[in-house]
Amino acid sequence: MGAATDHDRKQDRVLAAAAAVFAEQGFHRASVRDVGAEAGMSLAGLYHYFPSKAGLLHEITMRAFDSLLDRLDAEPAGPPRQRLATFVRNHLSFFLSRPHAMKVLVRETDALPAGLAAEVEGRKRLYYQRCHDILRDLDAGRGGEEDVRLATLALFGMLNWTYSWYRPERDGSPEQLSERLLALFLDGFAARGAR
Amino acid sequence: MGAATDHDRKQDRVLAAAAAVFAEQGFHRASVRDVGAEAGMSLAGLYHYFPSKAGLLHEITMRAFDSLLDRLDAEPAGPPRQRLATFVRNHLSFFLSRPHAMKVLVRETDALPAGLAAEVEGRKRLYYQRCHDILRDLDAGRGGEEDVRLATLALFGMLNWTYSWYRPERDGSPEQLSERLLALFLDGFAARGAR
Repeated sequence: MGAATDHDRKQDRVLAAAAAVFAEQGFHRASVRDVGAEAGMSLAGLYHYFPSKAGLLHEITMRAFDSLLDRLDAEPAGPPRQRLATFVRNHLSFFLSRPHAMKVLVRETDALPAGLAAEVEGRKRLYYQRCHDILRDLDAGRGGEEDVRLATLALFGMLNWTYSWYRPERDGSPEQLSERLLALFLDGFAARGAR
Repeated sequence: MGAATDHDRKQDRVLAAAAAVFAEQGFHRASVRDVGAEAGMSLAGLYHYFPSKAGLLHEITMRAFDSLLDRLDAEPAGPPRQRLATFVRNHLSFFLSRPHAMKVLVRETDALPAGLAAEVEGRKRLYYQRCHDILRDLDAGRGGEEDVRLATLALFGMLNWTYSWYRPERDGSPEQLSERLLALFLDGFAARGAR
């Protein structure tokens, strides 16, 4: 038990170091040696935890999606608008507090070899589907599948693009930003205030 | 005149090849040799047009922003809603027909060395400001500067994220997609149809 915990802690440290190095240098340019240096571990020590650079990238992305999905599962059910607010807050608070992981997910996942990429793609699709289903429930048949699909992709665009501009001291907490972006998405820029 | 035109055509060919190679491999991993192979030119021939790999990336991004700005300047003035429709259509039709350039702009520009990066940053800021000013005019003081800034960033997120999912055979022409995304941005997902 104590050994497993130490093992987990070291794994976490390696993954945080790898996310930082991949975010900074890009996956292809980064070396496992750089990750070791960032984690303060020898190459041999690092290979004990992760046998390859692609394995590190795979684990970073899988863990991110699993955490996001676990957090959603832990939320009580509710009306669609409330579930959407939870989804948006969950997404932004997860990623804005993990800028390295976010940058890696947005920019580096297509560097994965095919088998690992397919696994990540499956997880990503599950996560996308959660958001899609909430919007479908919220839409309640008004717009139809094509509308819901486009709105889901547009929402992810609004949320994910924050990785390129978010600064906490200027843009407020992830929770505050979630509320503002959600209101914009639901009510629209021109229509807001008209209700 | 004839020589200049041939020179321009060759430059264009090199830049298109470089955008394809950078989009495919990422800037850091790509080599000038790969760009030459893609363009069907010798290394010496290629260096005649562009002395460095960073010079290629710089030229791709500067040309993109200059084209976007030129197209906007060529449009007649009009009410804010019409100018916004033009901006969105211009942005999407430019980038969706140049997926390599778009991917490079979204993902690779921070690979530029500081001096060139600052130049690109200046152009990007000019372009951002165009969109911001249209939204400010459309808002007409209802929401204030913070609201307009957030809406501008959210709109760019919606539009730029298309690089990760747009497929013409499924998603329609850039013009059609522009109209749908613009309506979603202006009217909101929940508020639409309620007017």
